[in-house]
Amino acid sequence: MNVWYYFAPLSSIIAILFTIFLIFKIFKESEGEPEMRKIAEAVREGATAYLKRQYQVVGLYFLLLFFILLYLALNKMLPIFVPFAFITGGFFSGLSGFIGMSIGVRSSARTTNACKRSLNSGLRIAFSAGMVMGLIVVGLALLDLAIWYFILSKFYQSLEVATRMEKITSTMLGFGIGASSQALFARVGGGIYTKAADVGADLVGKVEVGIPEDDPRNPAVIADNVGDNVGDIAGMGADLYESYVGSIVATMALSVSAGLKENGVLLPLVIAGIGTISSIIGYFVVRAEEKASQKVLLAALRRGIYLTTFLVALFSYFLVKLVLGNNYLYLYWAILIGLLVGVGIGFFTEVFTSDAYTFTRSLASSATTSSATVIIEGISVGMLSTLPIVIIIACGIIGSFYLSRGFYNFSLGLYGIGLSAVSMLSTLGITLASDAYGPVADNAGGNAEMSNQPSYVRERTDALDALGNTTAATGKGFAIGSAALTALALIASYRDEVRIVSDGKKILDLFLLNPRLIVGIFIGAMLPFAFTSMIMKAVGRAAQKIVEEVRRQFREIVGLLEGKAKPDYGKAVAICTKAAQKEMILPALLAIIVPIIIGIFLGVEGVCGLLVGALTAGFVCAVMMANAGASWDNAKKYIEKGNFGGKGSQAHKSAVVGDTVGDPFKDAAGPSLNILIKLMSMISIVFLGFILRYSLFK
Amino acid sequence: MNVWYYFAPLSSIIAILFTIFLIFKIFKESEGEPEMRKIAEAVREGATAYLKRQYQVVGLYFLLLFFILLYLALNKMLPIFVPFAFITGGFFSGLSGFIGMSIGVRSSARTTNACKRSLNSGLRIAFSAGMVMGLIVVGLALLDLAIWYFILSKFYQSLEVATRMEKITSTMLGFGIGASSQALFARVGGGIYTKAADVGADLVGKVEVGIPEDDPRNPAVIADNVGDNVGDIAGMGADLYESYVGSIVATMALSVSAGLKENGVLLPLVIAGIGTISSIIGYFVVRAEEKASQKVLLAALRRGIYLTTFLVALFSYFLVKLVLGNNYLYLYWAILIGLLVGVGIGFFTEVFTSDAYTFTRSLASSATTSSATVIIEGISVGMLSTLPIVIIIACGIIGSFYLSRGFYNFSLGLYGIGLSAVSMLSTLGITLASDAYGPVADNAGGNAEMSNQPSYVRERTDALDALGNTTAATGKGFAIGSAALTALALIASYRDEVRIVSDGKKILDLFLLNPRLIVGIFIGAMLPFAFTSMIMKAVGRAAQKIVEEVRRQFREIVGLLEGKAKPDYGKAVAICTKAAQKEMILPALLAIIVPIIIGIFLGVEGVCGLLVGALTAGFVCAVMMANAGASWDNAKKYIEKGNFGGKGSQAHKSAVVGDTVGDPFKDAAGPSLNILIKLMSMISIVFLGFILRYSLFK
Repeated sequence: MNVWYYFAPLSSIIAILFTIFLIFKIFKESEGEPEMRKIAEAVREGATAYLKRQYQVVGLYFLLLFFILLYLALNKMLPIFVPFAFITGGFFSGLSGFIGMSIGVRSSARTTNACKRSLNSGLRIAFSAGMVMGLIVVGLALLDLAIWYFILSKFYQSLEVATRMEKITSTMLGFGIGASSQALFARVGGGIYTKAADVGADLVGKVEVGIPEDDPRNPAVIADNVGDNVGDIAGMGADLYESYVGSIVATMALSVSAGLKENGVLLPLVIAGIGTISSIIGYFVVRAEEKASQKVLLAALRRGIYLTTFLVALFSYFLVKLVLGNNYLYLYWAILIGLLVGVGIGFFTEVFTSDAYTFTRSLASSATTSSATVIIEGISVGMLSTLPIVIIIACGIIGSFYLSRGFYNFSLGLYGIGLSAVSMLSTLGITLASDAYGPVADNAGGNAEMSNQPSYVRERTDALDALGNTTAATGKGFAIGSAALTALALIASYRDEVRIVSDGKKILDLFLLNPRLIVGIFIGAMLPFAFTSMIMKAVGRAAQKIVEEVRRQFREIVGLLEGKAKPDYGKAVAICTKAAQKEMILPALLAIIVPIIIGIFLGVEGVCGLLVGALTAGFVCAVMMANAGASWDNAKKYIEKGNFGGKGSQAHKSAVVGDTVGDPFKDAAGPSLNILIKLMSMISIVFLGFILRYSLFK
Repeated sequence: MNVWYYFAPLSSIIAILFTIFLIFKIFKESEGEPEMRKIAEAVREGATAYLKRQYQVVGLYFLLLFFILLYLALNKMLPIFVPFAFITGGFFSGLSGFIGMSIGVRSSARTTNACKRSLNSGLRIAFSAGMVMGLIVVGLALLDLAIWYFILSKFYQSLEVATRMEKITSTMLGFGIGASSQALFARVGGGIYTKAADVGADLVGKVEVGIPEDDPRNPAVIADNVGDNVGDIAGMGADLYESYVGSIVATMALSVSAGLKENGVLLPLVIAGIGTISSIIGYFVVRAEEKASQKVLLAALRRGIYLTTFLVALFSYFLVKLVLGNNYLYLYWAILIGLLVGVGIGFFTEVFTSDAYTFTRSLASSATTSSATVIIEGISVGMLSTLPIVIIIACGIIGSFYLSRGFYNFSLGLYGIGLSAVSMLSTLGITLASDAYGPVADNAGGNAEMSNQPSYVRERTDALDALGNTTAATGKGFAIGSAALTALALIASYRDEVRIVSDGKKILDLFLLNPRLIVGIFIGAMLPFAFTSMIMKAVGRAAQKIVEEVRRQFREIVGLLEGKAKPDYGKAVAICTKAAQKEMILPALLAIIVPIIIGIFLGVEGVCGLLVGALTAGFVCAVMMANAGASWDNAKKYIEKGNFGGKGSQAHKSAVVGDTVGDPFKDAAGPSLNILIKLMSMISIVFLGFILRYSLFK
């Protein structure tokens, strides 16, 4: 094997070992008093129940798709390894979600308990739990890729290097389908779950009965807490696992037609590896003093991410030099650009969503007029936020293409775009950690509230929680941006795949004015809207069921409101779980079937149009919804801090309407679009052989 | 001159003569009692004041752009005729807006008065006023095109036919810029005006002071009535004038590279001509019995449109046969498809927005939960409505392309797409009439209310008004659909223009994966969002000014609320006028400057991507906003009819929030997107010579 190959399995093993170290560290902390344990236990049970049920449905889906893929492979429409790699990809993604969430739900009470000692201890526990998710994702993803690369290299070792690389990368490209499928269930199902529970709990608890958030008398409170873990840990993790794997395999595939030999194929793995090591180093600077303000806490988290980014920037300069030689050193620009795009999107996301800036403040002030103006203003803010973020992505694409010598070598330019996606995602270990940290801190706050901790503990968990809200918004921006670059890299490699799969027989007519292509773009641009509509309706229906259940419990369980009886948390959890799995079927089918239908009726060109249309419009929609939602959320919180009349004022009521609309926007529909654009690209790649054979336009 | 040429000027003259006949007919009706006259007079003054002010601003803009175009022409970056045709195009579009609106504001009191006699008389007056707008638009547009075709034919008569046609059509393509510019001001400015007045009047009048709609004590009531005319007559008219001219000139240009000689160039004009005559015939079947229900009234309007559509379908079969001969008879399919697309979009628009169907009813039922659910549900309905409508457009594009033999002759296929746009718009005389009828009926209702007419008169005007609301929604769908096809035809002809303007030197690299193209699509997909955000903020700011003014008058004018003193209507009108003109500058600049900037930095390929991205995402956004808005509006009205608690219930309050959000969606932002996608295409075409010379990518 090529020496650079060992980078990936090595850093994967380091990541996994470090994860084990973190888990031991977390488990050294006590879960606190019996009351705290009991609450944590309930959340844990709910989360496990959800995962169990989800994995059953996923299992069924995987079985079905496995046989379809096997059929395609046996009929020479797909490399024979893909069905099996599909299984391992799905398994590792599912495993990382399981581990990440298991640790997450075991860390919240421990965080609360650590907060009794000091703020820094709490931060370290919660962040360690996030880091477990971050590192297990990159660790298992790299492991999966490394194993298959090894197997395929051995299998094809008799071939000369160019053909071997083409075979290996073209096969590996199909792997992403496993991670994509897993992400679909985790993100879409998780999104529906978390928002149904949240909205359902709030509508009855806060609005109808008038009890505070996280009140243990609310029968949906545990489901709400479970939802945070399900949506923001497991869902986010699976989403980024997919991007991570997708960007790496797409870039590997792009390197072949760029003429870069095996070292070019391995470079993405090397960059990912160094990012993993850098993330671990970054972990150690995330700490705060006891009396730290929220600003200082945020700075602590940022320090970790910035240090990691800096280290990747530094190391990869030498790695590009060593792996590809001085002649290809300009490819370093693409890596640098990818890192900058990540930082830039994070910055502008904050500008549009944090109450430290004018947009969210003026959104809050619009709440003094009426709830209608809050809605109009919030949508405006979200829409306007797409302007700088699209410009950043645009500069990233153009920059990484042309600086990678796309002027002279088109394929090399595309490889550059892929590299920038890989480098953006290389810091995933720590960026995902700062994301997954959020639900742990949130649950810690819930635990403190429910178990009646002294006020200094709650103040500390509140400080950690507030921080989580900020990182959640930037984390979403990062997830969307990386999804866009990943999908673009997948689309770019699609072109090569068409050549390879058709043995050079199919001439792609990707002329923009080809009506099949234009129509593909039209339909692609429409899909995010139809998809969003379905998800939002699904959330609405699921929330309605929760509302009915919570009302029923308040009505039927004697003494519940007086705190003399316990609600049946499990029932609400079960309803959410069932509803989420059921409601996701239709949108999931849409994402899977549309590329195949378009392929049959409009040919490969129509599919390309479809993917580009869905990518561009989907990206803009996702950014809009994430930022509008976060801005509404923070505007409400800004008013709750005492501005414009504070809690209970007319402005606050209007702001709550905005927040309620924003919830499915930012936590269900928006993130699901990440999956839509990537999954459709993967489906198109995997079903390419099928479409080439059965399309009406050949 | 070719004999088919005379079709256009002839039908133009018939249209204009018939318009004069209609005006005489309207003026035979009395304006009624002094009170009615006074109210009509106030609206008239406001509308005239608005138009005067707008034309001043437009004049300035035209002067500026004229010199820019002249500079381009003198430096050989544009045919020398374009700057002058720009002026005539703008002038005729402005003139038709002026005539249409002048008649509109002179017809409302007459409609009220005629309603005293019978419902049918009222319908005939209001519909005649709408017909004036419809026919003057097509009449003047055809006249402008015919005159210039004549001049250019004479000027280039020494050239052999193919070159002559290329010169003529390439020059005429640039003409659309005049109509586009006029449309920009009419639609964007009009949209901001009408919604600022509407929202401002409602927020203080209905919500704060608690007086009914159209109450003469409300200082903004006249501005509100003016706004209906400004937005829905002048704005809608200029929008469709632009589509009409744009689709015709684009198709003429496309015929040259399709190799169709002069007859192919003239066919679009012939189709437009026969549509005009058919519209006049259709006019005569729009009449109702005295005791007609709303359903029957709607059927009467529909009968007119369907008859016209049928006549165009019938006549154009023979015309295609005669003009192009039997060998090209298959082009008739494209014409048929265009007509069907128009009907199909109208149908689905109604399904999603009318309270006769489930979507709007379940939206109304969601109002019983909370205003947040109304918002979520309304956005869902709007988003879902894009699914069938995009599929219709997609089938239209694919069908008209391939049935026009796009399998074998690519350019002929594109010509087919253009023809379908022309045929869809050929019924404009009567479709625009049923649109422009709305504000007249609405104002007639306002007049009846303000002048305290007996209840049977108000019942009749209400019946006419309710009908106007239905036609407004389908009219918007028609405007959006035709804008999309027009923009597509313009983009298609852009390719030929690149060849012609660069003398065949510029090789267009419209490969979809060209990163400049992809980035163009990204930015294009983002623009509708940024544009919408700007328009909605502009409406918000302008409405705020009206709110302050209305509050001031209620505070300062003694006895106003008791009906003992008169409000100062003129002040509110003046504020709206000024605000609309000021607020539209920024979005207008965006539409004009972005294609030029993209051209400079990303080349012609980037511009193509930009146009396609803006077209597809803009179309989907516009449909979403129009239908969500109309559905909210009708859900509110459905509740007001007594469902889910009726007026004043909690459900009604929630529905009002939806309606308030929907207002700027459907009447300001949504329709403005039609302009954005067409104007950017026109700007790109006109500045093509400039971009080819100064772009960084040549």
